[in-house]
Amino acid sequence: MTVLGTAETFKRDWLDGFVTAYGRTVRKVPDAYGVIGRQVPRRGKVAVVIGGGCGHYPAFAGLVGPGLADGAVVGDVFTSPSAEQVYRTARAAEGGAGVLFGYGNYQGDVLHFGLAARRLAAEGIDSRTVLVTDDIASGPAERAERRRGVAGDLLVFKIAGAAAERGDDLAGVHAAAIKANASTRTFGVAFGGCTLPGAAEPLFTVDDGAMELGLGIHGEPGVRTVGRLGARALADELVDGLLPELPAHDGRVVALLNGLGRTKYEEMFVAYTRVHERLAAAGLSPLHTEVGEFVTSLDMAGVSLTVMVLDDELAGLYAAPCDTPGYRSTGAVLDRVEPESTVDDYPADATRGGVVDRVLTAALESVEDNEEELGRLDAVAADGDHGLGISRGMRAAVVAARHAEAAGAGVPDALLRAGTALADAAGGASGALYGVLLAETGAGLRGLPEITAGALAGAVDRAAHAFVQLGGAEPGEKTMLDAIEPFRVTLRAEADAGSGLERAWRKAALAASTAAADTANLVPAKGRAARLAEKSKGHADPGATSFALIVTAVGEELGKDG
Amino acid sequence: MTVLGTAETFKRDWLDGFVTAYGRTVRKVPDAYGVIGRQVPRRGKVAVVIGGGCGHYPAFAGLVGPGLADGAVVGDVFTSPSAEQVYRTARAAEGGAGVLFGYGNYQGDVLHFGLAARRLAAEGIDSRTVLVTDDIASGPAERAERRRGVAGDLLVFKIAGAAAERGDDLAGVHAAAIKANASTRTFGVAFGGCTLPGAAEPLFTVDDGAMELGLGIHGEPGVRTVGRLGARALADELVDGLLPELPAHDGRVVALLNGLGRTKYEEMFVAYTRVHERLAAAGLSPLHTEVGEFVTSLDMAGVSLTVMVLDDELAGLYAAPCDTPGYRSTGAVLDRVEPESTVDDYPADATRGGVVDRVLTAALESVEDNEEELGRLDAVAADGDHGLGISRGMRAAVVAARHAEAAGAGVPDALLRAGTALADAAGGASGALYGVLLAETGAGLRGLPEITAGALAGAVDRAAHAFVQLGGAEPGEKTMLDAIEPFRVTLRAEADAGSGLERAWRKAALAASTAAADTANLVPAKGRAARLAEKSKGHADPGATSFALIVTAVGEELGKDG
Repeated sequence: MTVLGTAETFKRDWLDGFVTAYGRTVRKVPDAYGVIGRQVPRRGKVAVVIGGGCGHYPAFAGLVGPGLADGAVVGDVFTSPSAEQVYRTARAAEGGAGVLFGYGNYQGDVLHFGLAARRLAAEGIDSRTVLVTDDIASGPAERAERRRGVAGDLLVFKIAGAAAERGDDLAGVHAAAIKANASTRTFGVAFGGCTLPGAAEPLFTVDDGAMELGLGIHGEPGVRTVGRLGARALADELVDGLLPELPAHDGRVVALLNGLGRTKYEEMFVAYTRVHERLAAAGLSPLHTEVGEFVTSLDMAGVSLTVMVLDDELAGLYAAPCDTPGYRSTGAVLDRVEPESTVDDYPADATRGGVVDRVLTAALESVEDNEEELGRLDAVAADGDHGLGISRGMRAAVVAARHAEAAGAGVPDALLRAGTALADAAGGASGALYGVLLAETGAGLRGLPEITAGALAGAVDRAAHAFVQLGGAEPGEKTMLDAIEPFRVTLRAEADAGSGLERAWRKAALAASTAAADTANLVPAKGRAARLAEKSKGHADPGATSFALIVTAVGEELGKDG
Repeated sequence: MTVLGTAETFKRDWLDGFVTAYGRTVRKVPDAYGVIGRQVPRRGKVAVVIGGGCGHYPAFAGLVGPGLADGAVVGDVFTSPSAEQVYRTARAAEGGAGVLFGYGNYQGDVLHFGLAARRLAAEGIDSRTVLVTDDIASGPAERAERRRGVAGDLLVFKIAGAAAERGDDLAGVHAAAIKANASTRTFGVAFGGCTLPGAAEPLFTVDDGAMELGLGIHGEPGVRTVGRLGARALADELVDGLLPELPAHDGRVVALLNGLGRTKYEEMFVAYTRVHERLAAAGLSPLHTEVGEFVTSLDMAGVSLTVMVLDDELAGLYAAPCDTPGYRSTGAVLDRVEPESTVDDYPADATRGGVVDRVLTAALESVEDNEEELGRLDAVAADGDHGLGISRGMRAAVVAARHAEAAGAGVPDALLRAGTALADAAGGASGALYGVLLAETGAGLRGLPEITAGALAGAVDRAAHAFVQLGGAEPGEKTMLDAIEPFRVTLRAEADAGSGLERAWRKAALAASTAAADTANLVPAKGRAARLAEKSKGHADPGATSFALIVTAVGEELGKDG
């Protein structure tokens, strides 16, 4: 969707904002849809002038600045700029040493930049051109010169900018840029279409559960539709597509994983692990890696992988620093880093040990059965991951208790281990609070000869106290505490009345369940909490519900002993 | 949507990829979900350790590097990391001068970072904490300490990082960070919800045509739902929200327009023009501006505006360079730049001049009437803006012809001006090609005593020749040429047979229309063109259709003379 900006004036409006925001780096070309660097023109330096349609930010205007482009011409969305605009921008950028034009290989750009170049020539201004043709999906290798330019734009322009910055003449900058383009290949995939400003419908769509391999950055059709791949399989597709296309190399490369607009950064990183593994297996060592958004396609969902093979010259030029609104680099080189996983999974373990393992397993099953409902409750007022987080924490707790009990630990230590593992695995406020409940219950049972209803009531008193200290909640605020308190009070009363452990627990669990249901339906009278509750149709903190589920499941498990 | 990565292992998977990609800057903390800078720990330097749930990249792990954070702890999506993880990361980052913890003010983070701080203290490691509370929508000014942290995270951490980098001791770094937080305010708006990894449904939704002011970065409810605002009105809402909340200042500020994940960069710039104008009107001068994605919320659609007021100390610290995977700065200061528009619109002009104005106006109307259909044809194989681009170009052509004819120009000059204006306004390949057709037709009529069918046929011959030269198309490739050729041939035949101008033109237009319809239905037998055509259900280049529309409309307009 496009929310801000209208089709008619989109180019002008965003360009105005861009120049306003990044006036420290760029300024506007008078009477043209173009920008040049603040210190441009620079006498005696080749001017690198790039451009194309807009909708690809930071390409192209966002790549103007020291060490990269001197100027950029801005066309309408997905439309080449006109010859007139190219001419004016180049005229403003050139400093007497000629102009290196760089743009993706699209017919409109070729026409307009070509016309502008002729006009410059007529005025005695020399220019040369690099057409970026990195997209291997857009044509066969035998006709590589017909391919279109996509994310490789950034790398080719970076090389041209660095060559111009170090003082190469026009022939030198041109030669470096041509070499960079010849060394660069990109293969991309789209998961979902983009929407043009002012358009009611997406420009194109990708079927749910499908991916379009090789789709262009203006919605040009892909080469192959496949079912939706996982990160690993997708990375394999991208690398398998690129490898046979790479020119001769000594292993040194730049790797660029480019997001097309809507794909989450974290998702790109998920795919990058496998990309790197595959590149390394093929003998390629990325000296520089970037994962981010560099040549976008409005709000398109998808990614592309670009590899540029380096020789000494390209390696030196790529490492030179640059400072533009959309891409800044200190040129630091990447040491070879092997992917490693952070923390081992808890191994699956079939041993079924003591009572803590059993009751926590029952609790886990209950939470898992209700994961979706807990998430739904949580989503109304918070971030919807309560069920997921508690399940994750409980699984870790079960494994920790199982290990502890298998190693001979008693109930107090098993609970302590389980609580620590839960807090660590679940994170979040509820992870910390559940962790404290378990650990403090365990601590309260330590040193006792037998676990009676009274002993448990005392331990729960202690745990509830620690809970309040840590969480800072007060009764009636519709938090987990509103289920813990009736649980605690009932357990104590039953113990005092001489009930057995199982009966006392089940009565207490019933009190917790009743209170949780009440809690979920109470609407505070006023204030922010009331507004939240109204939004949430009476449900507030899902913690009360999850607590009730857990103690109920534990009670049922204890009943099996009887 | 989340395509790459599964809920269960999302945090680990993306963190692996992140460390692999950015190993030049960061490395993993052993056995923890945390990263530290490559040169960390640094003896005698305060360690700035930030963190929180993931889903906000580049916050928080992407902000680790020289000049910013020394370490970051990574929780699950939208979930605080556990105390254990915080402890391990801080332990790995600290270099003997203590730890400055920085994180957004959320209960889970407060709990876990607090527990970790206690554990560090027990080991004799000093730590202090800055809670970021920049989100004005999350609580009243009287209880500002209860507000949550959002995009202001970046600015507060940047200040803390710079203070630590220049060698301040823990009390000094803490004081600078506290001052930075006290100087920073954010107000945001959401247009659409985000989707958690593994979730089938969005975490929350925003009604079509609505905006949620003040919505948090984890989907926390906003303060007000409004109808969808234009860029200007939205910028006003954001600035009007912030201005009364700003602390005392001397006009120097940092302005940050932050995208939440799915909002197009160009859209943010559209809004920034007005933001800057309003800030300037309120006496605020942004020394630094950033427009981009810094603290995201998965793929949420929306933006937030952050303003940090600067004193000498904060200004100096903010200008210090930093180099992290997600944010790099050379610290260059922004000179004051006033927004200005680039090119004036052609003024509306009611004069209705000669024949070129009339026929082009008729052509424009026909194109506008069919804009949607042309766009639809174009969208199948290309970017869907053919109708829009040609309309824009034709409007400029009409105005140019009108001005020229009002100033006394004849048909040849009026056509020349119209062609130039069309190419400039439309851009793109079709803009260049239509521009050449008009201009060369005009050139072919120059110096003739009268415009006869024969004269026109000669001029069209010339234009078609120039068209082929420029565009490089050949007959049968289903381009515009396949409509131009029958038009040209028929016009010539009619002229040779002695037909009058209007009759000759209408016959030629009919031939063009027939050919365009054929063209649209012909499917090339093989190769890429065939695949494209298959995808496009037989429609290829919409240029043939638009050409037929235009010459038909011109013929009808000429008929009105009769």
